[in-house]
Amino acid sequence: MTSLLLADVRPWGGAAVDVTIVDGVISDLTPAGTGRTDGQRVDGQRVDGRGLLALPGFVNAHAHVDKSWWGQPWVSYGGQPATQGRIAHERAERDKYGIPSAAGAKAVLREFLRHGTTATRTHVDVDLGVGLRGIAGVLEAAADLNGAVEVEIVAFPQDGVLRRPGVLDLLDKAAAEGATSIGGLDPASIDRDPVGQLDALFEIAARRGVGIDIHLHDRGDLGAFQYELIAERTLQEGLQGKVNVSHGFALGELSPARRTELVDQLGAAGISWTTVAPPTSAPLPFREMRAAGVPIGLGTDGIRDLWSPYGDGDLLQVARGFARLHGLRTDEDLTYAVELATTHGAGFVHRENHGLTPGARADIVLLDAENAPDVLVRAPRREVVITGGQVVVRDGELQI
Amino acid sequence: MTSLLLADVRPWGGAAVDVTIVDGVISDLTPAGTGRTDGQRVDGQRVDGRGLLALPGFVNAHAHVDKSWWGQPWVSYGGQPATQGRIAHERAERDKYGIPSAAGAKAVLREFLRHGTTATRTHVDVDLGVGLRGIAGVLEAAADLNGAVEVEIVAFPQDGVLRRPGVLDLLDKAAAEGATSIGGLDPASIDRDPVGQLDALFEIAARRGVGIDIHLHDRGDLGAFQYELIAERTLQEGLQGKVNVSHGFALGELSPARRTELVDQLGAAGISWTTVAPPTSAPLPFREMRAAGVPIGLGTDGIRDLWSPYGDGDLLQVARGFARLHGLRTDEDLTYAVELATTHGAGFVHRENHGLTPGARADIVLLDAENAPDVLVRAPRREVVITGGQVVVRDGELQI
Repeated sequence: MTSLLLADVRPWGGAAVDVTIVDGVISDLTPAGTGRTDGQRVDGQRVDGRGLLALPGFVNAHAHVDKSWWGQPWVSYGGQPATQGRIAHERAERDKYGIPSAAGAKAVLREFLRHGTTATRTHVDVDLGVGLRGIAGVLEAAADLNGAVEVEIVAFPQDGVLRRPGVLDLLDKAAAEGATSIGGLDPASIDRDPVGQLDALFEIAARRGVGIDIHLHDRGDLGAFQYELIAERTLQEGLQGKVNVSHGFALGELSPARRTELVDQLGAAGISWTTVAPPTSAPLPFREMRAAGVPIGLGTDGIRDLWSPYGDGDLLQVARGFARLHGLRTDEDLTYAVELATTHGAGFVHRENHGLTPGARADIVLLDAENAPDVLVRAPRREVVITGGQVVVRDGELQI
Repeated sequence: MTSLLLADVRPWGGAAVDVTIVDGVISDLTPAGTGRTDGQRVDGQRVDGRGLLALPGFVNAHAHVDKSWWGQPWVSYGGQPATQGRIAHERAERDKYGIPSAAGAKAVLREFLRHGTTATRTHVDVDLGVGLRGIAGVLEAAADLNGAVEVEIVAFPQDGVLRRPGVLDLLDKAAAEGATSIGGLDPASIDRDPVGQLDALFEIAARRGVGIDIHLHDRGDLGAFQYELIAERTLQEGLQGKVNVSHGFALGELSPARRTELVDQLGAAGISWTTVAPPTSAPLPFREMRAAGVPIGLGTDGIRDLWSPYGDGDLLQVARGFARLHGLRTDEDLTYAVELATTHGAGFVHRENHGLTPGARADIVLLDAENAPDVLVRAPRREVVITGGQVVVRDGELQI
């Protein structure tokens, strides 16, 4: 048994407490000054929290850790506009940068850790070129970090499904070998057959008992139509709680009446939503979604890849982007945006207990901030990051 | 004569040089390793630039340094939506937080410095309640910092002009006493008399020889109509090069044909533009504006005030917001966004020579970055900030 006493921290900016961690799990929170390192401990370690604000580790619910050039010399963007052009560009250029690789995935996961992310759902490209090699690389990277970042895999057919015969077999194999979800991509605009792609994906998911997490960039009514197809199939196959729409830009673009109808349908089918809150997208009807029971998760999307040079893996900056895009200003709303980056992400990585509470994995981020709204608007440096009871960041610097 | 040798820095990410600074002005750039601290120096100081990337100091072309609660305990947002509600909220609440004050302005200017801003154009509220007291406070704060941030004042009638009899006299007085511009605010939606407000402002500006910098939140055709009124009066009064539109959200909302017509008209009248690039605004036709000779400056807007809790004074984050809002991805475009925060801002603070060139004031920011695009997408910590030859930030920490 190992133990760690995290002394004098303020959960969510509240009263200072000592957090006792045993075997990587939070065992107790007591008023500051009352925590013990003696007694049952074996190698009790003490970390001085200096009254810093404490949050649960961040959950990045939509990442692409397999396809980054993070850590390599700068790669000038040379792709084409629109989704199809970027897909082709990536496939043509990725070998040149050794993408995908375990080393590349590890570099990204380390950046996540540096910024306080301790669990992620990552889409990993599965296509006729790389097969399942990308997934193997990500799993190797995660293992190499001893699970410091918990990684959940979506086998992602970035290059299309039906239009690339053989990809369905790869998705099926990935589902059999540990991917918790299979992905999809714009069934209409990429595969040119929304019913065909969705039927095929739902068949695999139902048979293998995995989830579906589908990228939907299609706009307006074309996007909305595909949400309906997804909701119908989710209910038919009894996959409530296991289906997620990623991006789903169209939802914010519809008329209020149409939007409300769809949000209700999504809620009834137990469908969740992940967004990376790009500034050029329409705001989501997040209050309606919350009321309808549609979980929302935040993600960084890819960082520094052949799609875009942006991103550094800081989920708090995504939360701030979400808040600004939606015009949030009250303390309650700003705190909600921080919750999106932390506790609200739990379901996306299948954590039942994620928070600063006894029984939760000891994933804790310390920041020099007054309160949660202050965290949101400044996104200050992560002073200390603890994951599974291990201190991985001190004074903003990665220790592993 | 004082001198400083800034050794081994990479201007804009290029080859390493030594920068010699004499009496606060850049005197020479020579290949790294060849700079001298001996000879003509009196108290030659040497700063090791460690191969960091060097940029000219940032120019915040649209700030409100008089109205922030920066440095005070968190103030929960309690205002109303829309411009009119926020004006009223601010007027009702500001006394409670000691706004405006020299101390408050100084706290903001220090945050600017910490983030590399060495010159700013700031709007300062002028109204029947505070008179010109806000301007006096800002000037006191700037003097207290020994000019580390060069401050240019816009006397800003935040509460309206014609609808508040007496405000025109205050603007006239401010123009006589050193404000370089007088401001205006939505002549249509706030004063309900666009022609009346603009005629009055232009009369003062022409008589006093100052500029005009007008806040225009009005959208669509109502905004566009007011741009026309402004352009017409600018030409009539011979104020080309002295008139600026702040925000001007409408420009991005017009049909392409109408937009082109207006951009040409703005260019012909020598009108400039400042934006804070909010994620909810329409992208500006910045390429057309550039082609038409309409200068664009970036600003932080207010930070932590009774309008909004957002903002920390980091102009690089505004540049990144601009880049993301406009979908910039190529190296050339990402570098342009950094230039907006630095060299392109020079005209907004009446600097003829602003850059890493001999003869320019020695305002230099060092960052640990590979190249300008890398600066833009990561907005990393400002390792060293030098202003007027004085080192004011080391290792990211303010020294003054």
